[in-house]
Amino acid sequence: MADQLIVLDLWISPFAARVRIALAEKGIDYESRKEDLSNKSPLLLKMNPVGKQIPVLIHKGKPVCESLIIVQYIDELWNHKSPLLPSDPHQRSNARFWADYVDKKIYSIGRQLCLSIGEAQEAAKNDLIGCFKLLEGELGDKHYFGGETFGFVDVALIPFYTFFHSFEQFGNFSMVTECPKIVAWAQRCMEKESVSESLTDPHKVYDFFMGLKKKQEAK
Amino acid sequence: MADQLIVLDLWISPFAARVRIALAEKGIDYESRKEDLSNKSPLLLKMNPVGKQIPVLIHKGKPVCESLIIVQYIDELWNHKSPLLPSDPHQRSNARFWADYVDKKIYSIGRQLCLSIGEAQEAAKNDLIGCFKLLEGELGDKHYFGGETFGFVDVALIPFYTFFHSFEQFGNFSMVTECPKIVAWAQRCMEKESVSESLTDPHKVYDFFMGLKKKQEAK
Repeated sequence: MADQLIVLDLWISPFAARVRIALAEKGIDYESRKEDLSNKSPLLLKMNPVGKQIPVLIHKGKPVCESLIIVQYIDELWNHKSPLLPSDPHQRSNARFWADYVDKKIYSIGRQLCLSIGEAQEAAKNDLIGCFKLLEGELGDKHYFGGETFGFVDVALIPFYTFFHSFEQFGNFSMVTECPKIVAWAQRCMEKESVSESLTDPHKVYDFFMGLKKKQEAK
Repeated sequence: MADQLIVLDLWISPFAARVRIALAEKGIDYESRKEDLSNKSPLLLKMNPVGKQIPVLIHKGKPVCESLIIVQYIDELWNHKSPLLPSDPHQRSNARFWADYVDKKIYSIGRQLCLSIGEAQEAAKNDLIGCFKLLEGELGDKHYFGGETFGFVDVALIPFYTFFHSFEQFGNFSMVTECPKIVAWAQRCMEKESVSESLTDPHKVYDFFMGLKKKQEAK
């Protein structure tokens, strides 16, 4: 089917979850093809020969790569429902700025927190809490980052909610104590089916990091 | 003047040059305020409290940060002339992909090439040539990355032309031998006043890196 939509997907990837959430928000059906990153499919290598990474959205046979670019593509193409980016240019640039901030900070620092030890881990924990506090400042008293409606920054950040349990376990701190507004915001987002049905079990994420950490220690 | 446009600027920054080029393409007047990164102005710290980086575009008193986000803002607001992003959603996502690729690769690897020595420098040189060869593949036989007209990827990449001389000197290789299509493309771009008048003297860039390297060696 020429119009077929395929997502090259991975259960643990917060970047793939963004694409699942955006498509669910728009009510668009798609086929999810699970990738094994230790044995990447010929389709993934063909569709994203530069990055060789998931997620990839394949629409009418053509690939779109990089999660935030995919979410913008989805938003531009299916703009009839649940617009994600604001229509005002300044607000749009502000949403792009914060989504970019999430992209550059949360995954890399969060991964560092889960997989390092000692001082490096302590530094990552403090960095990560600092990032979430900045994000709390941007959220303010709004319902979502997008204001009254769930938007681009919400899509960018909410997939990391399934990592919060791992952050707390490895960092030995409480997210709700440190960043209560972010936790309350995440719980509001989880009331949306588009979010709750697109996210992974936090305990599976924790088991995944534990497995990686044990492999590291065995080396 | 409420409508005043200010760019918080820096002569050597390829990221600031993107903003200067985009505004020149649109024929928009602005005030360039030169920043001293060793003594950042209160205005910069107020307008970009998160990144504390240039460039910042201040429009009607409100800041837009991150160069590619600023270029998109400029393109969306002044779309009457020289559109930079394609109107087709798939082509637009492709332009965003390659601009993002330039953003993630060229500056960091190029800086590594200029400031490291020995094996690290050799690895950076090979990485950088590999990146330019990939970009040559994307350029193909087109006049610009945007096709017949100068576009978003062109704006993202061309500021690095002033770094080519430094890449060659520090890496001891010839850009035109390794990546002839990229050099020919850059020369085509330089025929545009919007580009040639926005870029810095390559010898000043080289002197800047030499100065940094001597400071490193003295430590």
